[in-house]
Amino acid sequence: MYTEIIASGTELLMGEIQDTNSSWLASRLPALGLEVRRATLVGDDMEQYTEVLERSWKLNPFTFTTGGLGPTRDDMTREAIAQVLGEELYIDNNQLADVKGIFDSRGVEMPSHNLKQASLIPSASGIRNRMGTAPGWWAEKDGHVIVALPGPPRELAGIWEQEVVPRLKERVKGNVVLTRTIKTIGLSEALVDEMAAAVLGPKEPYVGTYARPDGIHLRIIARAATRAEAQILIAPVDLQLRDIFQGSIWGVDDETPQERAGTLLRESGLTLATMESCTGGMLADAITNVPGSSTYYRGGIISYTNELKIESGVAAELIEKHGAVSSQVAEAMAEAVRQRLGADVGVGITGVAGPEELEGNPPGTVYIGVAHSGGQESSAHRFPANDRGLVKRRAVTTALLLLHKTMDAV
Amino acid sequence: MYTEIIASGTELLMGEIQDTNSSWLASRLPALGLEVRRATLVGDDMEQYTEVLERSWKLNPFTFTTGGLGPTRDDMTREAIAQVLGEELYIDNNQLADVKGIFDSRGVEMPSHNLKQASLIPSASGIRNRMGTAPGWWAEKDGHVIVALPGPPRELAGIWEQEVVPRLKERVKGNVVLTRTIKTIGLSEALVDEMAAAVLGPKEPYVGTYARPDGIHLRIIARAATRAEAQILIAPVDLQLRDIFQGSIWGVDDETPQERAGTLLRESGLTLATMESCTGGMLADAITNVPGSSTYYRGGIISYTNELKIESGVAAELIEKHGAVSSQVAEAMAEAVRQRLGADVGVGITGVAGPEELEGNPPGTVYIGVAHSGGQESSAHRFPANDRGLVKRRAVTTALLLLHKTMDAV
Repeated sequence: MYTEIIASGTELLMGEIQDTNSSWLASRLPALGLEVRRATLVGDDMEQYTEVLERSWKLNPFTFTTGGLGPTRDDMTREAIAQVLGEELYIDNNQLADVKGIFDSRGVEMPSHNLKQASLIPSASGIRNRMGTAPGWWAEKDGHVIVALPGPPRELAGIWEQEVVPRLKERVKGNVVLTRTIKTIGLSEALVDEMAAAVLGPKEPYVGTYARPDGIHLRIIARAATRAEAQILIAPVDLQLRDIFQGSIWGVDDETPQERAGTLLRESGLTLATMESCTGGMLADAITNVPGSSTYYRGGIISYTNELKIESGVAAELIEKHGAVSSQVAEAMAEAVRQRLGADVGVGITGVAGPEELEGNPPGTVYIGVAHSGGQESSAHRFPANDRGLVKRRAVTTALLLLHKTMDAV
Repeated sequence: MYTEIIASGTELLMGEIQDTNSSWLASRLPALGLEVRRATLVGDDMEQYTEVLERSWKLNPFTFTTGGLGPTRDDMTREAIAQVLGEELYIDNNQLADVKGIFDSRGVEMPSHNLKQASLIPSASGIRNRMGTAPGWWAEKDGHVIVALPGPPRELAGIWEQEVVPRLKERVKGNVVLTRTIKTIGLSEALVDEMAAAVLGPKEPYVGTYARPDGIHLRIIARAATRAEAQILIAPVDLQLRDIFQGSIWGVDDETPQERAGTLLRESGLTLATMESCTGGMLADAITNVPGSSTYYRGGIISYTNELKIESGVAAELIEKHGAVSSQVAEAMAEAVRQRLGADVGVGITGVAGPEELEGNPPGTVYIGVAHSGGQESSAHRFPANDRGLVKRRAVTTALLLLHKTMDAV
């Protein structure tokens, strides 16, 4: 079944905010049996919006919109759908109770502007949004459906899982697309390609390779009439790939490096501490984004100066002899923070995020150390240096993957 | 002058890679006098591609495409343009010399499938791409232009600055779009809407409101024949909004809270240190994303445990009496890290990111302390708690804004 996505918002169209919703939705629709043909971004411009919406509504059984459900004049999704379907907006009492309830729970009165969020048309019903004040819409006429979803990614994700997926599963049947992603590290794309040659390519299931900041991913894509049949298609190829890549696999599907690290730490009952220089807290931030991380993460030190490194337990002679940006100092940082914070495992990162070089080291130079009761190890890296944020991100991912390796060995 | 952007690639449409090119281009076109009306994403699907392309080519003086210029079968931008313009592809000798030259300079022979990158149609000329093997196209017929640009963001950026911008500046005159963004904090979107009612809406200049993690933004968009005229349109509305919102404004245009904090610190010659609990390094990460932050940022401590808070200089009695999640402890953290790291200003954050409550405090409870030579201050918050990452982000933004306030007062 074909579908299109329409994202609205002048700030998206002007490039002031990156639209991530279309991509987010597009990656989830195939598994529900919906094939995306087109994704369009329009501004807060009624003429453009209704033109794109009308075309998609007429051509496709399903159209998904994101954004434009807020309380302001710029929010025009409800108005656009009403116009395309040729119906009048009215304030719905149930919707109004819902929106008012949200403000009540925050202990504030509903501003009069928000009244429009309680509106409906005869062909639409509200979709409950537990994360914000904007209910979604399920509008259906002549067998064609428009699902209007909120723009804030967090609200979109919430309403999607809780409300939309169950309804779609009921409605769309007979063509399910399932994927399995296997994430490898330490191998080049060409090598992965070679090793997986026997299963790669456009067969059923399809297997492709994708280069990502956290390594080379292999994706199995299976199409079938039911979820169970798709799973049966995936299973043998999944096993085959696990057999081929074994120790190079660090995760599957949506798992992030920090989630995997958390799982490994929890399973082994070990605790972690970090000392970061060039990544400036990004590693700690990633680790603490995982719910429950307080059970294994003790804390960290961001040693942006040499004084703080020394105060935290790194030997001054080491910095003098090898420079602050060195594998020796990375290992010493890992060991020092492990001891200082009473953790089982320590990670140290030192390097040059850029744009300036540091003590003769070009931007992108990064050393990562891991320390545990059995000793220390480290790795040296030279990441592409055109972007400070990207150097930090690569360093953080690499540090987490090195931590996995160490945990597997401990 | 109106324009549209078309990005092609099945991996983009499936959400496997986020299309960032459309957003990148969209943010650059208005200043060149081109107003983006629509941005469309299509797969490697000739029917969809030519339909979208033909519509835009007929309606708009300019159409920009990204992607589909590579050497493989999936790369169909050249074919799509040829079809829409009703012309035949041929191998151009100059283009061929260019593409061959790139392989020569790498010391390898040109693979035969790269031959198609040397093709042209009568209405198109090549645009030199110094970063890759795919030349762009400038196709022009009946006064309508299609500019075909490569998909890899680095190649796009290179060809854009070196080749496309100079040509566009010559061609597009007399229609400049300028924007001014005014960023407020502490007010709801509905309230901002109400306060700015007199200037909001689709007049000239246009004024809109946008809810962001760092508060509500007001954007003024002015169109005029010249940059100077656009500035004259913006100025009085800018003044009016500054007058209406005064103390609620924390920044303008692209400036981030961390950049603003950096500017204030640099201007005053003061240094900064941070101690974070619930934000787990995200504050330090934001601060160190700013190039040159090492001149004012001394470092930080991520005190995920009470022991580490106490070891770092927070009085144990304080934690016992008020709890770790309290304004007293936030202030003590700020003061302790300021002293411990020898900085002029300290920031402390303690709270509950969630999803579990902590010591009876519900998720979203956050206290932020700022300490300087003149004393300490703090603020208490209850952020929406449905997302751990969002609680952290709100806390970080709020801490940076509190830091601005303190810096303004110091």
